[in-house]
Amino acid sequence: MSLLSTVQGPADLRRLSPAELGQLADEIRDFLVDAVTRTGGHLGPNLGVVELTIALHRVFDSPYDRILWDTGHQAYVHKLLTGRQDFSRLRMQGGLSGYPSRAESEHDLIENSHASTALGYADGLAKAHQLLGTPGRHTVAVIGDGALTGGMAWEALNNIAEATDRPLVIVVNDNERSYARTIGGLAHHLATLRTTQGYERFLALGKEALQRTPLVGQPLFGALHGAKKGFKDAFTPQGMFEDLGLKYLGPIDGHDLGAVEQALRQARGFGGPVIVHCLTVKGRGYRPAEQDEADRFHAVGAMDPYTCLPVSPSAGVSWTSVFGSELLALGAERPDVVAITAAMLQPVGLAKFAAEYPERTFDVGIAEQHAVASAAGLATGGLHPVVAVYATFLNRAFDQVLMDVALHKLGVTFVLDRAGVTGNDGASHNGMWDMSLLQVVPGLRLAAPRDADQLRAQLREAVDVPDAPTVVRFPKGDLGPAVPALERIGGVDVLQRTGPTPEILLVAVGAMAPACLDAAALLLAEGFTCTVVDPRWVKPVDPALTELAAAHRLVVTVEDNGRAGGVGSAIAQAMRDADVDVPLRDLGIPQEFLAHAGRGELMEEIGLTGTGVAAQTAVFAKYLLTDRGANQRHAG
Amino acid sequence: MSLLSTVQGPADLRRLSPAELGQLADEIRDFLVDAVTRTGGHLGPNLGVVELTIALHRVFDSPYDRILWDTGHQAYVHKLLTGRQDFSRLRMQGGLSGYPSRAESEHDLIENSHASTALGYADGLAKAHQLLGTPGRHTVAVIGDGALTGGMAWEALNNIAEATDRPLVIVVNDNERSYARTIGGLAHHLATLRTTQGYERFLALGKEALQRTPLVGQPLFGALHGAKKGFKDAFTPQGMFEDLGLKYLGPIDGHDLGAVEQALRQARGFGGPVIVHCLTVKGRGYRPAEQDEADRFHAVGAMDPYTCLPVSPSAGVSWTSVFGSELLALGAERPDVVAITAAMLQPVGLAKFAAEYPERTFDVGIAEQHAVASAAGLATGGLHPVVAVYATFLNRAFDQVLMDVALHKLGVTFVLDRAGVTGNDGASHNGMWDMSLLQVVPGLRLAAPRDADQLRAQLREAVDVPDAPTVVRFPKGDLGPAVPALERIGGVDVLQRTGPTPEILLVAVGAMAPACLDAAALLLAEGFTCTVVDPRWVKPVDPALTELAAAHRLVVTVEDNGRAGGVGSAIAQAMRDADVDVPLRDLGIPQEFLAHAGRGELMEEIGLTGTGVAAQTAVFAKYLLTDRGANQRHAG
Repeated sequence: MSLLSTVQGPADLRRLSPAELGQLADEIRDFLVDAVTRTGGHLGPNLGVVELTIALHRVFDSPYDRILWDTGHQAYVHKLLTGRQDFSRLRMQGGLSGYPSRAESEHDLIENSHASTALGYADGLAKAHQLLGTPGRHTVAVIGDGALTGGMAWEALNNIAEATDRPLVIVVNDNERSYARTIGGLAHHLATLRTTQGYERFLALGKEALQRTPLVGQPLFGALHGAKKGFKDAFTPQGMFEDLGLKYLGPIDGHDLGAVEQALRQARGFGGPVIVHCLTVKGRGYRPAEQDEADRFHAVGAMDPYTCLPVSPSAGVSWTSVFGSELLALGAERPDVVAITAAMLQPVGLAKFAAEYPERTFDVGIAEQHAVASAAGLATGGLHPVVAVYATFLNRAFDQVLMDVALHKLGVTFVLDRAGVTGNDGASHNGMWDMSLLQVVPGLRLAAPRDADQLRAQLREAVDVPDAPTVVRFPKGDLGPAVPALERIGGVDVLQRTGPTPEILLVAVGAMAPACLDAAALLLAEGFTCTVVDPRWVKPVDPALTELAAAHRLVVTVEDNGRAGGVGSAIAQAMRDADVDVPLRDLGIPQEFLAHAGRGELMEEIGLTGTGVAAQTAVFAKYLLTDRGANQRHAG
Repeated sequence: MSLLSTVQGPADLRRLSPAELGQLADEIRDFLVDAVTRTGGHLGPNLGVVELTIALHRVFDSPYDRILWDTGHQAYVHKLLTGRQDFSRLRMQGGLSGYPSRAESEHDLIENSHASTALGYADGLAKAHQLLGTPGRHTVAVIGDGALTGGMAWEALNNIAEATDRPLVIVVNDNERSYARTIGGLAHHLATLRTTQGYERFLALGKEALQRTPLVGQPLFGALHGAKKGFKDAFTPQGMFEDLGLKYLGPIDGHDLGAVEQALRQARGFGGPVIVHCLTVKGRGYRPAEQDEADRFHAVGAMDPYTCLPVSPSAGVSWTSVFGSELLALGAERPDVVAITAAMLQPVGLAKFAAEYPERTFDVGIAEQHAVASAAGLATGGLHPVVAVYATFLNRAFDQVLMDVALHKLGVTFVLDRAGVTGNDGASHNGMWDMSLLQVVPGLRLAAPRDADQLRAQLREAVDVPDAPTVVRFPKGDLGPAVPALERIGGVDVLQRTGPTPEILLVAVGAMAPACLDAAALLLAEGFTCTVVDPRWVKPVDPALTELAAAHRLVVTVEDNGRAGGVGSAIAQAMRDADVDVPLRDLGIPQEFLAHAGRGELMEEIGLTGTGVAAQTAVFAKYLLTDRGANQRHAG
């Protein structure tokens, strides 16, 4: 029987001896490598926080005390120590979430996978504890060095420093990288802190503590020092955190459990905001991850833990790689094209471009606002920036897209990867907002390519626009087959006609083309004829599309985007403005937060498959085009 | 003839003697007080940067060098020195913009009035200059200490510090306040810098320079020191900027022209990123402004410059004040209600609440992201935060509203002031985005009150929602008359029926109620009968509204919000989902950036007056309801 299986909750940790804690850490690492290579998930980040998480749960009293995990993908160990050890369906429908989840546990608070938020919550919680007269209720936020490059974190630090009497422990989990190496002035400063004498001194202090005091739930700090003296000794007064008015403690070897515990106990007793700077190694204890400079073990698919070969190797070509290759080609033709990423160089497909044009590639850190604002500056300076980002993360920079790029009529191209349903990463990773948000941006042009040829063509069209923001968005994963057009009317591609004068205009937005073609075939079997079109550019709405609409009896729009204010709504409005009062129905992602599940499962659930589109369209058609469904649709 | 009138452009400044420059500064201050008290505008910020602006244009070669004004309301002096001295129609239709404007001058680059953006542009421009082989083209960003509390500024600083060989001068215009006193750790750090010996040392150096060197366009710095030595002496190695890797120069007396010039010349010659810390006094030289602790001279209406009494005193009651009073009352009843502002305590009406409940009021700085994220934390901690912000600035925190509040089902109320058309401040101040953006947020409830009673009632309804974000939005300015309801159907108020069975359902969103009532009267005169309703809560769409729609022959929605994805689109979608295929037409703000002009002028121009709504509705009605307009509408 493993030690891990005897840990039902944090209280069980406090009974373990130092040797047993060491064994537990080993077991957790074995568990993680075994479990995560089976299901896929975030491996490197969790291997890096084993000791830190054990220490947090020994020193703080969760859930009374609040432990906040920034970004959340490093909360697997936390799950294991708070009663969640069935990882067999991790990130799958009905299984554990890949992030903290309040539905799973009272120990979880932040479900959001967007980085740099934890300090904001922590500031709010600490304020609440003070106002509600429970200042002894501790708040601890764990944030990576990469996430500290995000503006929200700075705003929070500035506020946290305002009140010196509000207890709040900020653990900086410093592994020198977010997804890639952390960049910028802050990274250099952290590096400086790492190499100070304070580090060695603190390590020595930690070892001394371990030798002299059994680690059995008693406040080490109190055993070693009188409170005031101890702080004076241990807090090294240095650097920008101190300049802001935040006490700084560290750096600490994040894999030395005794040292981490000692630091956390000191921080816990301090009574004000304090930074605990922990140095950890991403992937710690799993050699392939520790040795991989490219950080490919940050998140993995199901794989063999020894060979690291994927269980189901992808046979296809990804949207990302087609974009990456085309941008590389564009880079050779257009010296003014530069690329920007927010700490996601590899995942968004910029690696090739960066290797060829390092001086034209800018990784700004986890800082989408700056990605866009600096793009505005680059465009003002005469270059054409391509900002490549996951669709969901562009939300962070909406104001900059609107005010800094669009108001200024600047030629900046946004490439949104992982648009639509992404699935396993849960609600906050789905890219279901972009085609609605961006509708409101004056002058912006938005493309949703349906296949590799269109992606290449539309990227080029986008980069050719000199005086307005352009967007190219595509989903996660591999491309489907090429979808040729019968003809192009205006800017609209006609993909299929299932009759000489079809009744239904099926508007397939981007990657929904194959599903819509399937649906058209199914609908024909039910006696309904369709014209299937791909508008290619979904903003602005092409006048050819409203003219096509006027020639049909029913328009059905299909998009892998939230229904509210999406492409369907935009087309409906364009039709109203043209006095085309043909009935329209709009299919898309329901405007709610989708629980984690496989992408295919979700697409089926929300009806965005060929069968789903056909079934829904048939209901509309029966009601609107025939007397078969008259007054029946809402009869149940 | 004044000296000022002889300055046609920056080159003219370089011919002036120190004494003449002093005279010019005086003339500029007289001009500003005279001109801005006539038209209204930003007074305090511009009086504070007179010497700084003169120095910038003497040291740098705009427009070849790029001078960027963060937030932009302090660019009046810059306008005066770059050929724009007709302030007679400042901020009025056809007159000068209150912000930099590329249409006005090649010396202007950033038009965006949202704070904290300039460093992002500057980073992009500096990168562009480097890539394009023009590293001698200088980039200077002027940013207030308040704007440095914004996360974007931090993201930019972190990136700017990354490259030590990219010239970029950051002038921190430190007046210890943004709109109110700057808050947070950064403010304390700036205060520490202010009081260092470096300040006195630098002042002495500046004076010495003035005595020894005539200020005639020659590089003072070179005259005083050898380059390397000079930097070593003058750059005081201290504080967080240095920790990030940014050279720091200062603090400088921002009203000592010689000292400012000297510092800027040193910074210009440095060859890398450098901070020049200038201390200025907001309102400098105009006693009422200098002495006003509440910063009421930040922006003024037309007023008597001696008595400071408004030229056209408002007789009415503002939306803001009704909100402020009601929140105060709520504060007494509900100890869990707390208020959050992003450096706008007075303008958003929180002053009364703050005076009564200082411990329950949080000013987070110009940091909308943190306002919302910390609100999520406060709500998690058991309190009910009311985040009061200008509608346009909520765009900065869209991701936090979506992910941190809505995904977490937290009870946070957002109060959006200055929603709709604001007018004189131009494109980036209009609050025309909120009702579209917020449509996509699952679970969020959005109220647009039509009068004071509804504002009070809906604020209370909003604060009563414990598990979802709620929004109350209202326009700038004074309330109109109370608009009573005939009856309430579901949650929808029926305001008027101009016939027993009206043909047209006129949906008046919030403050559009009076215009819609006027329109209904005008339409009756043309033979069209209307039911005028106020949906009160515009999200979610009330089922009663779609039922009402089904009982009419035409639905016309009227909102002071951008048309794309707005309330009209949401109602149209709800009608489609209920198979109510009654024709709908949606009136709102055209989805474009509106040029600055009076609010009334703009509302007339975009047809959101009683006459405008009636005229447009009559066209729809003639086309759709009668044969009078059949096929005529688009015939021209």
